[in-house]
Amino acid sequence: VATVSLESLNAADEAGVIAALGDIYEHAPWVAQAVCGQRPFATLAALHDAMMAAVRAAPADRRLALIKGHPDLAGKAARVGSVTADSRAEQTSAGLDRLSDAEFTQFHRLNNAYREKFGMPFIICVRRHGRDSILRQFESRLHNSVAAETETALAEIFRIAALRLDQRLEAPDRLRVHGRLSTHVLDTHGGTPAAGVAIELFELPASGEPRPIASAATNRDGRTDEPLIAGQPLPIARYELRFHVAAYFARLRTPQGDPPFLDVVPVRFAVGEPEGHYHVPLLVTPWSYATYRGS
Amino acid sequence: VATVSLESLNAADEAGVIAALGDIYEHAPWVAQAVCGQRPFATLAALHDAMMAAVRAAPADRRLALIKGHPDLAGKAARVGSVTADSRAEQTSAGLDRLSDAEFTQFHRLNNAYREKFGMPFIICVRRHGRDSILRQFESRLHNSVAAETETALAEIFRIAALRLDQRLEAPDRLRVHGRLSTHVLDTHGGTPAAGVAIELFELPASGEPRPIASAATNRDGRTDEPLIAGQPLPIARYELRFHVAAYFARLRTPQGDPPFLDVVPVRFAVGEPEGHYHVPLLVTPWSYATYRGS
Amino acid sequence: VATVSLESLNAADEAGVIAALGDIYEHAPWVAQAVCGQRPFATLAALHDAMMAAVRAAPADRRLALIKGHPDLAGKAARVGSVTADSRAEQTSAGLDRLSDAEFTQFHRLNNAYREKFGMPFIICVRRHGRDSILRQFESRLHNSVAAETETALAEIFRIAALRLDQRLEAPDRLRVHGRLSTHVLDTHGGTPAAGVAIELFELPASGEPRPIASAATNRDGRTDEPLIAGQPLPIARYELRFHVAAYFARLRTPQGDPPFLDVVPVRFAVGEPEGHYHVPLLVTPWSYATYRGS
Amino acid sequence: VATVSLESLNAADEAGVIAALGDIYEHAPWVAQAVCGQRPFATLAALHDAMMAAVRAAPADRRLALIKGHPDLAGKAARVGSVTADSRAEQTSAGLDRLSDAEFTQFHRLNNAYREKFGMPFIICVRRHGRDSILRQFESRLHNSVAAETETALAEIFRIAALRLDQRLEAPDRLRVHGRLSTHVLDTHGGTPAAGVAIELFELPASGEPRPIASAATNRDGRTDEPLIAGQPLPIARYELRFHVAAYFARLRTPQGDPPFLDVVPVRFAVGEPEGHYHVPLLVTPWSYATYRGS
Repeated sequence: VATVSLESLNAADEAGVIAALGDIYEHAPWVAQAVCGQRPFATLAALHDAMMAAVRAAPADRRLALIKGHPDLAGKAARVGSVTADSRAEQTSAGLDRLSDAEFTQFHRLNNAYREKFGMPFIICVRRHGRDSILRQFESRLHNSVAAETETALAEIFRIAALRLDQRLEAPDRLRVHGRLSTHVLDTHGGTPAAGVAIELFELPASGEPRPIASAATNRDGRTDEPLIAGQPLPIARYELRFHVAAYFARLRTPQGDPPFLDVVPVRFAVGEPEGHYHVPLLVTPWSYATYRGS
Repeated sequence: VATVSLESLNAADEAGVIAALGDIYEHAPWVAQAVCGQRPFATLAALHDAMMAAVRAAPADRRLALIKGHPDLAGKAARVGSVTADSRAEQTSAGLDRLSDAEFTQFHRLNNAYREKFGMPFIICVRRHGRDSILRQFESRLHNSVAAETETALAEIFRIAALRLDQRLEAPDRLRVHGRLSTHVLDTHGGTPAAGVAIELFELPASGEPRPIASAATNRDGRTDEPLIAGQPLPIARYELRFHVAAYFARLRTPQGDPPFLDVVPVRFAVGEPEGHYHVPLLVTPWSYATYRGS
Repeated sequence: VATVSLESLNAADEAGVIAALGDIYEHAPWVAQAVCGQRPFATLAALHDAMMAAVRAAPADRRLALIKGHPDLAGKAARVGSVTADSRAEQTSAGLDRLSDAEFTQFHRLNNAYREKFGMPFIICVRRHGRDSILRQFESRLHNSVAAETETALAEIFRIAALRLDQRLEAPDRLRVHGRLSTHVLDTHGGTPAAGVAIELFELPASGEPRPIASAATNRDGRTDEPLIAGQPLPIARYELRFHVAAYFARLRTPQGDPPFLDVVPVRFAVGEPEGHYHVPLLVTPWSYATYRGS
Repeated sequence: VATVSLESLNAADEAGVIAALGDIYEHAPWVAQAVCGQRPFATLAALHDAMMAAVRAAPADRRLALIKGHPDLAGKAARVGSVTADSRAEQTSAGLDRLSDAEFTQFHRLNNAYREKFGMPFIICVRRHGRDSILRQFESRLHNSVAAETETALAEIFRIAALRLDQRLEAPDRLRVHGRLSTHVLDTHGGTPAAGVAIELFELPASGEPRPIASAATNRDGRTDEPLIAGQPLPIARYELRFHVAAYFARLRTPQGDPPFLDVVPVRFAVGEPEGHYHVPLLVTPWSYATYRGS
């Protein structure tokens, strides 16, 4: 995605603003247009607030049209391409482009039930969810009232817009739309950071095989050079970290039993706050370990 | 298996002793006969020592015949039944009666290689091993010298005999042939034993699905009423305990995130000492846990 | 204290019962007399219940006389000896016989204030309290109403009686009047129980020096041969365990820094349930440790 | 201490260099003079290396004079003031200016014994030691040979010089002469950093009262805003951290027993590497805690 600076946006003419921000809200360049006169914006947050206020201030039918302008999730539209590039990339991130026929059918059934009850597409900020979580949201939100669901749809649209803005604009501030998942390994046998421990991260779907997300090895500080996930929301899902500790202790020639009492240590946990910081470390000897949600 | 008391054995005639102990050593009632005159035995350990000494004292060719009298592991003999009942039960315990065709072929190949090199069957106390461990032993022992391997075969025969004696005889003492695997769960959030936590134990083969071994729920002391494994050697293998902690904390209405940060906590470890005591507890809050090899 | 069996008590004449149980309630042999006709008692608990019921069923003035028959705590009476032997031993256990002049004055002041407000002595089951806790109870109970305080005094008298009964009688059951404080040390560096670790237990008064209570060394199981406290209530107080871990690891020649990162590990905790089981273990490497209230 | 930039030093005339660096080596401006011609120095490390090389390259008697030019530790000289300002500040840091008469006598005795054996003063980089550690070094180094001790004295002089250089000069690099002691508190009951926990740090002398070093409260991240010790070597000594956890949990209205099972948690540890990073965190619930040497 080409980025643009908030500064240049503040200096652009209306056509330039719409060119830059017209698709922040799906098929609704009027939102960008509505905030043109409020420039300059000192921060990204101010711009985001102004655009949300413009949506809130619009007539109800225009707001409803905005909602209805969104594509069905994993629907026919997404398959044939009449959606914005952003929408397509977002749906891809949750694996919605890789549905099995059975899953596609299930999504299709939910889509139809949702449209029948609410007369609008199901809107969710997919970057904040794993596939199972989207499905749970879908099932759960079907029980909402129309009024509550319209509010929820707007809230999700604002989340989508915030992510698009944060990705698109260079600005002195960032929106708080990203989470972070990190780890470190401490060798409490030797009293040092554990260097060179191979770590794998998997997403655990409710059914089917674990899906590899990231892998890394710890550095001299027992940390990974980069967080395992950063620069994006953490999809709401279950995860498994795998720490290859027997190989680490074997390199140090530390007695650890034959076969080693511990080998690959699995740590399973769920993420429920996509914008949260999850630090899930391992304190380990060949005979014990501890883990926790740290900070 | 019908049991007999050491006391009655001490009082029996020679035919009675051979009837009771003749199959402790596979197809070798002469071992039982050899110790008849040394009665009475005060303890099971004394009887076991005497029988081992009789084997050691026998002429080399008789000892070799004893070794050669054992069935091939997972071999044709075991399939058609010309082995003792004890042998069959022992081989069943390690799953050797449930080999796939590929596995049967692999065992057959190893059996043949072993017989070719050593001129005797591969003998191992199978109750002390999981299937992967037997295979590793098989591969590894193929590299031994004939002398070393003959010693190893005898040592395994003595282990088999000890297990049979311990199972067969009522006596004031027990042989140290059993291990124990136990656990407990401590709720360090509430500062109490965690009661009612569902626990499952699986054996983890090198390939294929985890094999369920035991399941239990913790009692008021946070322990299981019975050890997860007891009264037998702990097969050398890799295991996984699964602690259902989210369900436990949900019953207590303890906040634990949505979805719960922890749900089913897996703890993987290997057993390397079949006669050892493995206590693998879990200290847990909704946000952290620790485990260790305890005592 | 000479003990008597419940069985012989059931068979004794009334004089014998009064001789055995007449001083369970301070200066009130009528309580023992009142339950004579209800014999035989199958259990100690049944006897205790019957005696409490007799107190409850007595006329109010008799019950008040029972309360008033108790000595002042740490008062003049205790100094010159006109109290029962049980009372004196109980007061000694909390160190009330070793008060400084200032403390004696403070107790005296509280005694007077209490007598003035309630017209009776302050009664507390001193075996359940450390000195600071008695003082806190004293200050706190001064704020009670007369009715509430009369109830509290009775409850304490019943606790005192239960302890005396449990100590005096041989019976098939025991009253739940004792607590237990225990520990164990697990060497998570080596994956074994830590044997030979010196452990000290101190009571920590609000002011002044720690008071040594017990000391022990861990055995092969990492436990102490006896609980640190057992066979009595655990006095409500603050305690400190001191684990001599550097000496332990030094014997094993485990690298632990120079000087050792850890040396004597102090663990401070409070006991609030005199009849509770407090297990306070240490999981330790030369570079880390964990402790918790276990079971 | 006034600082000077490496840049201006590189541009200064010889008198300026000597004015700036003449007292880096005690009473030995010739060391500064010797490196004047090697300027410019790109880094502080290069300057330090050059000055050490100049000392090494000097004739043996000059080197010995440098050593002998140092004041006695805690000696008469330090009392009446004929030492450099740096020396006095350094000796003050270890509490050598606050010796009791008995301690002064002990130091005096060691000083004399040392001078008698080695013919020079005992030199040690006092900023790297607590008082007990200095004493242990003194006793231990008395057993060295003259050659070994001369080497040791030089090594200590280089350490002293490095600290002075690092403090005196602004440069693009820093010498690795500082350690760091930090902590953080994680509330594993709530799964969050523990904010607002009062923490105290004491130095524990071998005898006498703990000496307060620092105190702080944890911020929203469960950390202290500043490390407990930074910007200096960590004196080799024993320390105690005190974490006020009962007050923290009381503010959150977390049940923790009455009285709270834990109150002020003491963590004792020793520092052996003055230039090391010691991170000593606390993971805590009202019923358990863990600590370790982290990174």
